[in-house]
Amino acid sequence: MGLLLLCNGAFMLLAAVVSGIYDDGVTLNITIAALTTLFLGVLFMFNTRGHRKEVQRKEGYVIVTFGWLVMAASGVLPYVFSGAIPGITNAFFETMSGYTTTGASILDDIEAIPEGILFWRSLTHWIGGMGIIVLAIAILPLLGIGGMQLFAAEAPGPNAYKLHPRITDTAKRLWFIYFGYTVAETILLNLAGMSFFDAINHSLATLSTGGFSTKNASLAYWNDQPLIQYIVILFMFLAGSNFVLSYFAFKGKVWKVLKDEEFRIYGTLILLFSILTALVIYAQANVPVSDYHPMVFGEGESAFRHGLFQVIAVVTTTGFVSADFTSWTPFLTVFFFGLMFMGGSAGSTAGGIKVMRHVMIIKNGLLEFKRTLHPSAVIPVRFNNKMVSEYIVYNIIGFFVLYMLLFIIGALALSFMGLDFVSAVGGAASSLGNVGPAFGSLSPVSNFNALPDVGKWWCGFLMLAGRLELFTVLILFSPYFWKRT
Amino acid sequence: MGLLLLCNGAFMLLAAVVSGIYDDGVTLNITIAALTTLFLGVLFMFNTRGHRKEVQRKEGYVIVTFGWLVMAASGVLPYVFSGAIPGITNAFFETMSGYTTTGASILDDIEAIPEGILFWRSLTHWIGGMGIIVLAIAILPLLGIGGMQLFAAEAPGPNAYKLHPRITDTAKRLWFIYFGYTVAETILLNLAGMSFFDAINHSLATLSTGGFSTKNASLAYWNDQPLIQYIVILFMFLAGSNFVLSYFAFKGKVWKVLKDEEFRIYGTLILLFSILTALVIYAQANVPVSDYHPMVFGEGESAFRHGLFQVIAVVTTTGFVSADFTSWTPFLTVFFFGLMFMGGSAGSTAGGIKVMRHVMIIKNGLLEFKRTLHPSAVIPVRFNNKMVSEYIVYNIIGFFVLYMLLFIIGALALSFMGLDFVSAVGGAASSLGNVGPAFGSLSPVSNFNALPDVGKWWCGFLMLAGRLELFTVLILFSPYFWKRT
Repeated sequence: MGLLLLCNGAFMLLAAVVSGIYDDGVTLNITIAALTTLFLGVLFMFNTRGHRKEVQRKEGYVIVTFGWLVMAASGVLPYVFSGAIPGITNAFFETMSGYTTTGASILDDIEAIPEGILFWRSLTHWIGGMGIIVLAIAILPLLGIGGMQLFAAEAPGPNAYKLHPRITDTAKRLWFIYFGYTVAETILLNLAGMSFFDAINHSLATLSTGGFSTKNASLAYWNDQPLIQYIVILFMFLAGSNFVLSYFAFKGKVWKVLKDEEFRIYGTLILLFSILTALVIYAQANVPVSDYHPMVFGEGESAFRHGLFQVIAVVTTTGFVSADFTSWTPFLTVFFFGLMFMGGSAGSTAGGIKVMRHVMIIKNGLLEFKRTLHPSAVIPVRFNNKMVSEYIVYNIIGFFVLYMLLFIIGALALSFMGLDFVSAVGGAASSLGNVGPAFGSLSPVSNFNALPDVGKWWCGFLMLAGRLELFTVLILFSPYFWKRT
Repeated sequence: MGLLLLCNGAFMLLAAVVSGIYDDGVTLNITIAALTTLFLGVLFMFNTRGHRKEVQRKEGYVIVTFGWLVMAASGVLPYVFSGAIPGITNAFFETMSGYTTTGASILDDIEAIPEGILFWRSLTHWIGGMGIIVLAIAILPLLGIGGMQLFAAEAPGPNAYKLHPRITDTAKRLWFIYFGYTVAETILLNLAGMSFFDAINHSLATLSTGGFSTKNASLAYWNDQPLIQYIVILFMFLAGSNFVLSYFAFKGKVWKVLKDEEFRIYGTLILLFSILTALVIYAQANVPVSDYHPMVFGEGESAFRHGLFQVIAVVTTTGFVSADFTSWTPFLTVFFFGLMFMGGSAGSTAGGIKVMRHVMIIKNGLLEFKRTLHPSAVIPVRFNNKMVSEYIVYNIIGFFVLYMLLFIIGALALSFMGLDFVSAVGGAASSLGNVGPAFGSLSPVSNFNALPDVGKWWCGFLMLAGRLELFTVLILFSPYFWKRT
């Protein structure tokens, strides 16, 4: 925890530097926030007594969940000290939305916020995404969470995905890719015409599949610069795919990427869904278009681009907005609501249920036909041409059931706070899946400020639970956890 | 099939007799429909060549699905011949909604329909319910559908639920209870002040958990006669509980009923959900009330009654309406949408996912916490104090996944036909769960006539798939089914 606080404080100093460069008037405030965080970190470090070197399984869940909470608790300081976000509830919501790479915002006018604070806001995404990479690659498989073991160790050939034996080595290699992609996107966006500040902020928010923008209209601000949007599309796609595959690609093992079952399905579905969306937009050239997007949606390239952009933005749970997908057609509204549950690939920074889990669940469901016809035969699920153990299938199904339960409870709670049907189910699905924009009063052209205070805390909880793959958080509430063994 | 047609023809003759008694002007039309059906039945009977006595497993699925289709195909005749329902699409929808005991209607003015036709409409419910009892008790367990084996043979003590070895005997005993309940409700409703015609029609629609009413306002017509509504509440509750438990109760084995895990959860949940609903209605005394229900919902008894009535009507998938539950509060709208997925007990005439399956799925999901903490331990699900085999748990989870998949596809298809979000997801959930009323443009104060023709056929398909526990219908579309073994 102390180490996390020290890192967080260092990142805040970076934001203070940016603030100083742009001379936005809050440099001192951010610096004080950074020093407070660093001081707390040092306090934590020197107050640890006689800790063992080996971390137990149960301690793992506590460390992950409380680690995220400690980050969020210290991450509010720049907002609070600078007064950029009034009220601890709002500051907490924005911070939690940042670290969980959700990207839902309570800011009514983003463009009025000082540059240093905007940069800190984007940094929370990027730090969260970094945390998720370690979590997905190294920690969650060890903790036995929702079938992540499968992806970590069981996929093509034994240990094929264990890049290097030591966790820290693996993490460093993947962080390097993460960092490299961020730099590459920043340069490309800058070359394509975006200001350097906007480019770096959007890159931080893309690679983490976060979704915070520096513009009120999000990526719709650049609707007349298709190149910028295509660059963001490319990097959202990369951020939503397994980072280990990127590593293989850089090592020249492209066949390993192309043979990966999850990647193939992820790519195919995105393509199919984008074409479907584009065709529907194209067919409905004269749908009502909101003020944000003064463009003709019916034109060929534009329909394709917006279809692709919004499908990838929602599937990878980035949540950038090039157009208000809730105002296209009733069909697309229902369709995008469904996409909120899809999620990117395992081992990416994307949230949601994830492609791998869906594939396993649907395969298992369809095999029931075969099992029903041949009740005595043992018919296992196969993934990447390997048999998957029943234990892992149960694991994944358990995850799915808990996800749906938490979604239902989440939607019920939001509707109890007065949200209408569409906003309540949309808000719960979007928060749990770390997408960002939702439906109804929480649509892409609106924001989460409409929520009552209790709703903001509740959505924050849903974001955290979704981000940490449910079990990590919810297991702390289970009686089994607190039993001595 | 021939036998089914003969039975159906005989029931039509009964409707013709009712038509004659009320001299409603369509007696001849219904009689011709009956004779046509009987004639077709005889044709079918005499055209069977060299059939084996033993029915194979695969033939079982075909017989069940096509049996229902043959019933629906012949059941449209009274509507078509009398001209009471114009167009084959509308007639088919109303018939399928009848036999699947859904209760969704396309009739704008029910009270203008001749008595004979109304009676036939209620009869289709009752015949469907009769079919479901045989199916649930005897046929589906043999076909290995979605964990129904569990309820049929594995529940408390080996063979405890096998009332009698021979299927026909069991079916006869349960039909006798079904018939007895129907007679009892008719008498009670008549005594409570309902006309004899209304009483018998509503009884036919209650015990089958159907939901067709003879009044445009459904049970809200009797909002100032609480006794009538309480009688309907009682019989909806009975119809949604396992008929085998009714048999035990009549045999004096009440402890067997009270010890049954599914029954206890079914009863407890209904009570809790009713109280919750009543409290919310009570707290919101001045919610907008539609024209149909000129009453104050905030009063104590009335709030409790409407809460209880609507919770039971939706949980048991009857779909009678005492008040427009979609107009109460946003919370209750989301809540009742969730209830659409609950369903009654296994072995009842109710549709939906069913309490037993939910219990198994949630138990299994929560056990994942325990399994995650102790990865090497084998931790099975228990139901009614017995261990449940992994095969059956898989079976049930497979059912759940297919149910959700079909719901998503169903909602997407309806939204593609132009329905808005709430109507599309509500209509799909209601059709698949055989509830009846839905949300938005398909709300309790509206009807399904607003659907385009293709939507009516699509909802008819969803009703049939839901009614026959998915596998029975969907397996016919699976490649495994058509493979020679």
